Parts: sequence; structure tokens; C-alpha cells
Amino acid sequence: MIRIGIVGGTGYTGVELLRLLAAHPQARIEIITSRSEEGVRVVDMYPSLRGHYDDLAFSVPDTATLGQCDVVFFATPHGVAHELAAELLATGTRIIDLSADFRLRDADLWAKWYGQPHGAPQLLEQAVYGLPEVNRDAIRNARLIAVPGCYPTSVQLGLIPLLEAGLAQPGSLIADCKSGVSGAGRGAKVSSLFSETTESMKAYGVSGHRHLPEIVQGLERAAGQQVGLTFVPHLTPMIRGIHSTLYAQVPDRSVDLQQLFEQRYADEPFVDVMPAGSHPETRSVRGANMCRLAIHRPQDGDLVVVLAVIDNLVKGASGQAIQNMNIALGLDERLGLEHPALMP
Amino acid sequence: MIRIGIVGGTGYTGVELLRLLAAHPQARIEIITSRSEEGVRVVDMYPSLRGHYDDLAFSVPDTATLGQCDVVFFATPHGVAHELAAELLATGTRIIDLSADFRLRDADLWAKWYGQPHGAPQLLEQAVYGLPEVNRDAIRNARLIAVPGCYPTSVQLGLIPLLEAGLAQPGSLIADCKSGVSGAGRGAKVSSLFSETTESMKAYGVSGHRHLPEIVQGLERAAGQQVGLTFVPHLTPMIRGIHSTLYAQVPDRSVDLQQLFEQRYADEPFVDVMPAGSHPETRSVRGANMCRLAIHRPQDGDLVVVLAVIDNLVKGASGQAIQNMNIALGLDERLGLEHPALMP
Amino acid sequence: MIRIGIVGGTGYTGVELLRLLAAHPQARIEIITSRSEEGVRVVDMYPSLRGHYDDLAFSVPDTATLGQCDVVFFATPHGVAHELAAELLATGTRIIDLSADFRLRDADLWAKWYGQPHGAPQLLEQAVYGLPEVNRDAIRNARLIAVPGCYPTSVQLGLIPLLEAGLAQPGSLIADCKSGVSGAGRGAKVSSLFSETTESMKAYGVSGHRHLPEIVQGLERAAGQQVGLTFVPHLTPMIRGIHSTLYAQVPDRSVDLQQLFEQRYADEPFVDVMPAGSHPETRSVRGANMCRLAIHRPQDGDLVVVLAVIDNLVKGASGQAIQNMNIALGLDERLGLEHPALMP
Amino acid sequence: MIRIGIVGGTGYTGVELLRLLAAHPQARIEIITSRSEEGVRVVDMYPSLRGHYDDLAFSVPDTATLGQCDVVFFATPHGVAHELAAELLATGTRIIDLSADFRLRDADLWAKWYGQPHGAPQLLEQAVYGLPEVNRDAIRNARLIAVPGCYPTSVQLGLIPLLEAGLAQPGSLIADCKSGVSGAGRGAKVSSLFSETTESMKAYGVSGHRHLPEIVQGLERAAGQQVGLTFVPHLTPMIRGIHSTLYAQVPDRSVDLQQLFEQRYADEPFVDVMPAGSHPETRSVRGANMCRLAIHRPQDGDLVVVLAVIDNLVKGASGQAIQNMNIALGLDERLGLEHPALMP
Repeated sequence: MIRIGIVGGTGYTGVELLRLLAAHPQARIEIITSRSEEGVRVVDMYPSLRGHYDDLAFSVPDTATLGQCDVVFFATPHGVAHELAAELLATGTRIIDLSADFRLRDADLWAKWYGQPHGAPQLLEQAVYGLPEVNRDAIRNARLIAVPGCYPTSVQLGLIPLLEAGLAQPGSLIADCKSGVSGAGRGAKVSSLFSETTESMKAYGVSGHRHLPEIVQGLERAAGQQVGLTFVPHLTPMIRGIHSTLYAQVPDRSVDLQQLFEQRYADEPFVDVMPAGSHPETRSVRGANMCRLAIHRPQDGDLVVVLAVIDNLVKGASGQAIQNMNIALGLDERLGLEHPALMP
Repeated sequence: MIRIGIVGGTGYTGVELLRLLAAHPQARIEIITSRSEEGVRVVDMYPSLRGHYDDLAFSVPDTATLGQCDVVFFATPHGVAHELAAELLATGTRIIDLSADFRLRDADLWAKWYGQPHGAPQLLEQAVYGLPEVNRDAIRNARLIAVPGCYPTSVQLGLIPLLEAGLAQPGSLIADCKSGVSGAGRGAKVSSLFSETTESMKAYGVSGHRHLPEIVQGLERAAGQQVGLTFVPHLTPMIRGIHSTLYAQVPDRSVDLQQLFEQRYADEPFVDVMPAGSHPETRSVRGANMCRLAIHRPQDGDLVVVLAVIDNLVKGASGQAIQNMNIALGLDERLGLEHPALMP
Repeated sequence: MIRIGIVGGTGYTGVELLRLLAAHPQARIEIITSRSEEGVRVVDMYPSLRGHYDDLAFSVPDTATLGQCDVVFFATPHGVAHELAAELLATGTRIIDLSADFRLRDADLWAKWYGQPHGAPQLLEQAVYGLPEVNRDAIRNARLIAVPGCYPTSVQLGLIPLLEAGLAQPGSLIADCKSGVSGAGRGAKVSSLFSETTESMKAYGVSGHRHLPEIVQGLERAAGQQVGLTFVPHLTPMIRGIHSTLYAQVPDRSVDLQQLFEQRYADEPFVDVMPAGSHPETRSVRGANMCRLAIHRPQDGDLVVVLAVIDNLVKGASGQAIQNMNIALGLDERLGLEHPALMP
Repeated sequence: MIRIGIVGGTGYTGVELLRLLAAHPQARIEIITSRSEEGVRVVDMYPSLRGHYDDLAFSVPDTATLGQCDVVFFATPHGVAHELAAELLATGTRIIDLSADFRLRDADLWAKWYGQPHGAPQLLEQAVYGLPEVNRDAIRNARLIAVPGCYPTSVQLGLIPLLEAGLAQPGSLIADCKSGVSGAGRGAKVSSLFSETTESMKAYGVSGHRHLPEIVQGLERAAGQQVGLTFVPHLTPMIRGIHSTLYAQVPDRSVDLQQLFEQRYADEPFVDVMPAGSHPETRSVRGANMCRLAIHRPQDGDLVVVLAVIDNLVKGASGQAIQNMNIALGLDERLGLEHPALMP
């Protein structure tokens, strides 16, 4: 059995790790931490888990105990993994960080977008960006894995086939993304209240969202050159799901884009290129570690539209984290991640 | 592997059977029927199942093929199982009927509530009411199982401990039940449209709902005498979930009701008696084969309030059907039904 | 024009007062207060009001300014009106309090349920309970009006015809009430988050809710004797709306209940007795100052079921407050309150 | 009083006309037609209107009666107005058509997109496109008004200031639009069911939507030249609201776009240019005849993002229809349309 620790288990990505790992045949949660909920039983906070983790309670983070785990997940706000990572890595455990702490290669860029100095720049060298469809080999040997953000996962999976093939004009990409409310976390904020979000739609962060540099970093890696991206996130009245509508100028009509995407992801267990003409729904991936894609060229023009859907808490966070764990530990990548979406 | 047939697979209970059976280690769907969708691939109708049933297509019901299955589920409107059951049973297969066709013991009562003659009264003798918490032994040997309705499951599980113990006054029981919209099925009806149901709540069928005689039959069996029940169902703006708020006069205060319920369900894998003072949420069972209960005696009065939640498509339909299958085939009752609820 | 002050205008009942008063031909908001938002323009906080209150900003409560108003509404948490009422009444203005501060006649009972001493017991004598259908004459001369709570409005309107007529057995009344999430206010609480409340239903406060003594007080007044009430509130995934399902033993079958209700409310502009057999939906009163009722006697038994729907923010709060204002000032009671519900 | 007829009053735009006209001081509904609901009282179908139209029942369309109205609204599927318009216009009444029948100037283009011949090409000459912000003078004298579609209203209002000023490159415009489910109408379709649409987001019609040629026609009129538009509509889990996110290349940075928009719409009662940096929410216009706009230039790049929100049933249909009526009859344009949005 894999001994697992979770730092910061009270938020949505934390409870989602618990939900998914309950179905993982080789996982055992050894410790889950929360300063604010110390001593509280997990099932008292999350009755949906009754019968699964009846003996587990939140405890205060403690390097010694965490260090005895094979894998430690960080499901924490940014900054926390910076603080604890070096000490933990020294114990020999692996870290899979769901926060933004190690996603950007450039510490200064991180500092600029997060408004505070990078807390562990010396670890960036060994940090691996955990997007398996791009980085699987590096993940296999990684001890410190940065799980991609939810928006970045969907946007990268939707655009990199075009960029790797040199087909998309890199200067004017657009990602119009719609996210469910759980993406804003479980914090008590007026803007996340039911009565403030349901039955309404809005854009936010149009002037600049923290996922922008992460997406650009990934797209530039795929393109091998600078890219220009306009990223407009929207808040949508649903709990889970991201729908990314991606626009790219692809003047070359000689390439069969459907085939290009199908070949790019032929061996990927968690990317599904849908038949030509499809319109993927976010509910088709609800609760599932899957990204579904569809490629359109409306009115046969220069502009290609890629539709990409994921569950922000699964392929956009906790499911992808477990996929990384499976790869890093040499297990079947699909372990614990094969159940279908909950539909309806 | 268990060879499984599904008659009428295009509705919500049909696709829910597919979703749940995808995680069942011993199940293999041999055939799924639909007259209206003949030839359509299951995954083209339900993209959420892509990767799970890629080779399965809907076909026209055919007794010969269905007869080669170990189990045939009926996920059909009432009346269909009446027509096909006798012929199918003759082939030696087992039938697990999710419709109302064999739930009532009394063919005349059935005819009265469903407005048509009972189509197979000669089979009532062998039909077993598939509520495992009451009827497990009979299910073990059953060849024709009537899966309880969604409302009846939650109401019976919530009230039978009081009735079996002779504590509740049987004449004035009340079941105030709130159901998600999926309970109305996948039929194209104006009354089930998003714009007609979201952001609103209403009662319906107050003068008489078809689940009433089924509930009464079950409660009378538990009470060993006639019961009087007022049943008021409500339509609630959520996809899944039933919340039954049950009221019973229990003048005797000498019995510890919490303990009574805990003991009654101590060995039940799919009934969860929550701690005293709890308020179960329907989301705590979303997608899970579980009934969670809480018992209250407000202001220490004579009236006891039992709160019971289930997912109408799982413990209220397809999950319970699989639980019945597991029991009938001598398998571990929990196979394929152990994943936690999807929360949030 | 009526000069109006609003104390505590940032919550849902505050903004609802603004919305409704924008359509009132004789109302002019002179001052709206909020300590936390001092100086913020109302339309910057509530862009839905742009074009209506462009010059209005939140200010710190100030008795002198408030005292120059004809009417001061309190849309505050409990306790605030206790503090300010005496001083304000001394200026000659009228107070219409949407909080719970003056709803209970008994200061000790108030103290027990609210966990703090009553802050203005000397004013209880002159406080009038603002349920116009019961208390219209007293409201006409009132200077201090306690607007009923949302649950209490719907439960009282649904049960008092039976109690006034001496038809309902007073000892075993049940109010099973379902409320939208806005009833929990605009405070930043985890339990009111979209991802915690949508797609789920739960009961709460079964052991005792603060609206219970208020309802009992009103029902006892109607019955002329003690009543026993079990009150179970539920949280429903919708913004607005209360659906109260009321149960009463009415053994006497000689009275035409439909007629009884129609006569009781014949002259009431804001109570709508629907045709026999109806199932009112909460959306039929969304945004409207209206209570719709339907009366059922299922299976012709002793138990009568009354269905009552209101919009908790309108007839359950701000609309009823304005109705009280109109009555108190001798205006047409319907002024500003006649627009139909928003449907769909 | 203005005598009003409504043809096809059972759908959402029909009932929305009724809701809005109930608050119009000079409107009187003389006749409302529906073949399928002949004889049904309006308030029995729409209880939200009880007390407002108690004596009105649906009748079969009849030119003689309709012809006695001052204005006849068509709230019908496409094709119906084609059939009846000529005969009705001959009676001297005015027609305000909410359907697509007279929106396109080019009968062949109409035939291509609607898959049937245009039924009244001879009337196109006199048909006026009813977007007041562009066409007010023509509306004043019009006898046949084509009310713009919901998507076209929001997209045109958001882009025409840039196109009229010659600032946007006309060849690569993008409209990423999100609509509530009521836009799909009140027809009984599986794809509009609550359980099929809530908690999910999807694009649809990416290869071509019928509103595309209407939008292009309007944008080309503003630009004075051909435009290229990619239009991607999305279905969003809310009843009402359209959020259009509009992308245009505007390389010239010398113009203050905020000022440009504010001046363009300075005298428009139903277009609200929000302060720089705003993110309008659809709920801020729920139930209101208003379009709110915000202009962004992310990362100070060439691409300008305009956010435009409307209520699809109001400024996108019935409200705009009434606005047209007011203009055509020489009334104050705002009559009956001034109430604020319903928020929350």
C-alpha cells in the first residue's frame, strides 16, 4: 500500500483527493492536516465520506509524520508548499503540489503575479510540471511535482496539438473559459454565495488572471516561440466543470485537424478527442479524470475553434494529482481514475 | 462474468445502470435494448460513457438474446415488464424490474392506481419486493425481483424501525418528500424543462400519487396492521436526491430511538444512521447507494421526525437493483457500489 | 413624497427595499446607512440599481438625519433596532423593523430564543405586529411596526383560517417549510456557498428555530388557545421562495374549506386562494408581494394539507414592510407592489 | 389606451409581454391567440399573472379582431408572421414581430438559413429592423417592425461603437456568447430538460447558427463594409441572460474607448456603459430592459474585449418589442420598462 499524506485537507481539492483515493486499490491515507480543524473527524466535516475514513481526523502538519509517507499532497493556498517543501523532500518523500507554488519556472514571474517573493526558488530546478500528456517522462522520476491549474490544463490540452505542429499563428490566441464556482474554493466569500452566483454569468479578471503566465509558459514550450494569449475567465453557475472555448488562426487548410488531434492523443487514457462536429458538455466529465475535446473550423474560415471540457476538481486538480502519483510510482496510470462521469 | 441484459436503456435509470456496472468487477453488458434508438451507439447518446461501452449499441428487444443473460434489468415504463416477463423467465434468466409492474402484491390495487389491468397477475406469487433491508432472504432465491420505488425506499427505511417496534401510532403517519427532477424521467415534458423547474419548489400529486399504495403496503407489513399515511411529494430544483421528512406520533419516551435505529441497521452496508442531532443532506449520497437517516424529537414532544435521504437514481433505483442482483447471485452485496458520493 | 430612511441597507432585505421602492410613486430614499460601507455608492455595490439611485451613498447611522424621515426601515440583524428605536421614535418618525426585535410580545421569551436580554422591553407595548391580514387596524395607527418573519408569514396565512374557525385541532400542527438560500442572508458563510447548497436539500434547526415562538404566538392569537406546532425548516437550492406545507387535523368534514379560505381572504390584495386542486409554485410569486394558497384533503382523511408560497424577500420581508408603510400612512395599500412575479 | 393583440402567447416571449405590459400605464391586451390552448384562461396557464389578466383567455387567431388592435405582437415561431402579416397590415394595424421573419433584408439569405422559402418578400421593403439605438427614426414611422434576436442585440450593441468609428479590424471579429436556457423556448425538448442542462455548460451550433447572418448584417451596416465574424453560442445553466464576450482587433491606442462608448450611448435609456474595469453580471439586468457594457484592453494589447449583458427575454425580445411600440406610437420610450432588475 502507498502511504499518503495530505496537507490542507479541508478545501475542495482536499476532499476530492479523499473521494478519489477511496477508490484507489493501493492507497492508504496516513495523515491529513488542517490547523483550523485539528482533532475533527474527517467524516464529521464531510459526511459523504462516512464509511470510508471513519478513523481519520485532521491533525496539525508535522514533518516527521508526513516524512514517513510515500507521497505528500499539498492541497493548500499558495505559499504553504514553499515553506514546507525543502524540509519534507529531505525526508525522502515525494511531493505532489496542487497549489501554484512550483508551476512557473521563473521565480520573478511568480513573485510578480502572486505579490510576494517566491519562497523556495532553489527547488524550481527539480520541480516537474505535472501535465502527463506533455511531461510524462519527467514525472516518472520526479520528487516534486507541480500539478497544473484547472484553466491551464484545459487550455494547454486544447491548443498544444496546433502549436506543436506549427499550425496556429502564435500571436493572437484566445481562451474564453467558463468555470464552475468550486474553482473559487471553499472560502467564505460573499462573491461565492449561492444567491450571488446562481442564475447569473460574468467574466472576471479580464485585466489579468494568475493562470495567464502559467498557460503562456506551457503554450510557448509547445510552440517553441513566444505566444500572445488573451485569456478571459468567466464564472458559471455550476459546481464543477470548465469549458474552454479556444480560438486560433490556422490559415493552412491542408492538414486534417481532426486526425492531428486524434493522433496526438492516441495513447492518452485521459484525453478524449470527440468525433468531428461534437460539442462536449462539462457534465460528460463530471467527477471523472478526463478532458474531452472537439475541433471546429466555422464557415471554413481561418479561425479554428477548439472546445475543451474538464472537471476542474478532477483532471483540473485532484484527479490529475493522482495520475501524477501513479506515474511517479510506476503504477498503472489509470488506477483509481477509471469510473465514468456522474451523468445526469 | 455475469452476463447482463438491459431492457429500455435510454432513460435515466438505464444510463445509471451502465454507469454503476462500469465499476462492477464481474458485470458484462451483453445487450441493451431500445426500440426508438435501434442501432445508435450507447456512447453517442451518452458521451459520459465514452471509453467504457464503445462497442455497445441499442438493439430491439429480443427474447432469445435476452434469455441468454444471467440477469435482465427492466428500466422501462410500467407495463413493459408485464408483457415480457413470463416468456423471459421461462428461459431461466432472472428479472430485476425497476418499474412498478410487480411492486404491489394486489393486482386489483395495481390496476386501480395505474389505470389499466395488471398484465401478469400469475407472476405475482413469485415476485419478490427487492428492499434488502427487509427482504434479503427472499431476494436470495428470487427469479423475479421488483425494485422498490424511490420515494418508497426512503420512507420505508425511515419508518419501519418505529413500526416494527410498535412505537409509532400507525394511524397518522406523514411523509413530506422532496425529490429532484430526474425522478420525473428523461421524457420531453414541459413540466420538466429547466426554465420551468429551476429556482422553484412545488408540491404535486397531493390528492394521490402512485407510490402511496406501495409505501402503505410496506409500512403495513412492518407494522403488522393497517396504517394511515399522508404522502406529499414535492419537486425540488436539483437533479438527484430525495429528502423525506417523516412524522410519526411516538408517545412512549422510554425507548432510546437513536439506539433503536442503530441496532436495526447495524449490519446494513447501505443504511447509515447518523449521529443524534444530524441533518443529512441529499448531496451526501449523490451518486452513492446509500440511505442516511437522522432521528429527532423536537421540543421533546410526542412527534418524532425522521430525516431520510437517498439518491433517487441509486438507492432509489439502479443501485438498489444492482444490490439485489448481488444478493440474488450470491455475490458480495457491496460489489460495484462502494464508491463515495460526489461532493461537492 | 414620503421621505424614507433605511438602516442597514447592504443585505438582501435592504436592496430589496430599494428595488421595490424604485417603483413606488411616492417614495424618496433620503438616507441609507451602513457602517461597513460608508461612502460607497449604492449602485457600485448593486449595479442592478444603476439609473435609479445614482446619487445615493451609504452613510453612518445618524439619529438627527433619520429623524427627519417620515419612515425609517430597519433591515438589520437583531439587536440593532432595540438600540436605536427609542431615540428615533422620540423624533416623531415611524419605524418599520424587518428584524426580529419587536415580533414577540414577551421580552423573556425573546431573550431565551435570541440568547441575549431584550434591549427595549418598554417599547413592546406600542409595537404592532405587521401582518396586515390580521392586524390592519392596529397598523394604521402604529409608530413602531414589527414586520413578520418569512416563515411566520407563510405559516400564519396558511393556518389561521382553520384556527379562527375552530376547525383545526390545535395540538398537533405541523409546518414543513422549504426556503430559498437568500433567507440565510448575505453574510459570508461556508454553509451559504453555491457549492455547498446547490443540487442539495436538507432540513435544519429541527430541534428549534427562532421563528417557532413567533409562529406559535400568531397561531395562538388566531386560535384563542394554546397550540402545539412542529416546525421543520429546510434549505432549498433556489434564491427566493418559501413553500410551506402545513398539516392540520380537521375532523369536521361539514365545512367547505375552499370557501372558508376564499371568504377569509376575499378582500386581501396580497393573498390569493387558488382553485381547488392547485399546487402553487414558489416561482409564481418570485419578486411579487403575494401569498398563494391551496387547500387539500388527501384521500378525504382527517388531515388537511395547506400549501402556501411566498417570496421570502417580498411578502416575507421587504414587500410586506412597504405594505405596512402604505397602511400606516393612509395610502393605497397596493402602491408600488402590484407588478406580477418574474416568471420564468 | 393602446389596444394590443398578441399572436402566439403561450411561449416565453408571450408571457413576458404580458408581464411587462401589466406595468405599462397605457396598454390594454385585447386579444391573445393560441391554437393549441384555445379557451384556456391565461392565468390558468400562468398563475403568476393571477390578478392581472383574470378575464383573458387564449383564442384562435382571427384577422378581423386582431385588425382592430393598434399593435399586434407576434411571439411565434418563424414562418407564422410571413403568413399573416400582409392581411393584417391591410387593416391598418401595426405589427411588431418578435420572430425572425423580417430581420434579414435578403429573402434568399433568409431562405438559406431557415430552410424554406421566404413567405412575404414583398413586405421586406417596409420592414424596419427594430434596434432603437441604431434605427430610432425609422421605427417612428414603421408599420412592420422586426424585433432583433437576443444574441444579435447584445453583439451589435457591444461592437457597433468600434465599427462605426472605424477602429475595429472588421475581418476577424469574435462573439463568444453564453445564453440562458429560456432562449431555447418553452417547447418540450429533451435537450432543454432540467436534468440535461443544469450543472453543465456546452457550446452549440459552432458550425453555423441562424443568428449569424442577422448579426453580420447589422455589423456590416455599422462598419460600412464586409465583416468577418466567428460566433460561438453556449448554453448556460440559468433561465435568463445573455453574456456576450466580444473580441476585436483595435490596434489604434490613441482613442479613449471608454469615452467612445459613453458618448455613443449617452442618450440611450437602455444601454448602460459601466465604469472602466467593470465585469457586468447577467443578473444585473434580470427582468430589466437594459444592456450593460464594459470595455477592456487586456495587457494593453491590440485585442479589445467588450462584455455585454442583457436579459434575453427583455432587451433581447419582449422588452425591446415594447420599446419599439413606445417609439412607433410616439410615447415616452421608457413607459413600462423602468423597473430595476430582480437581484438577487
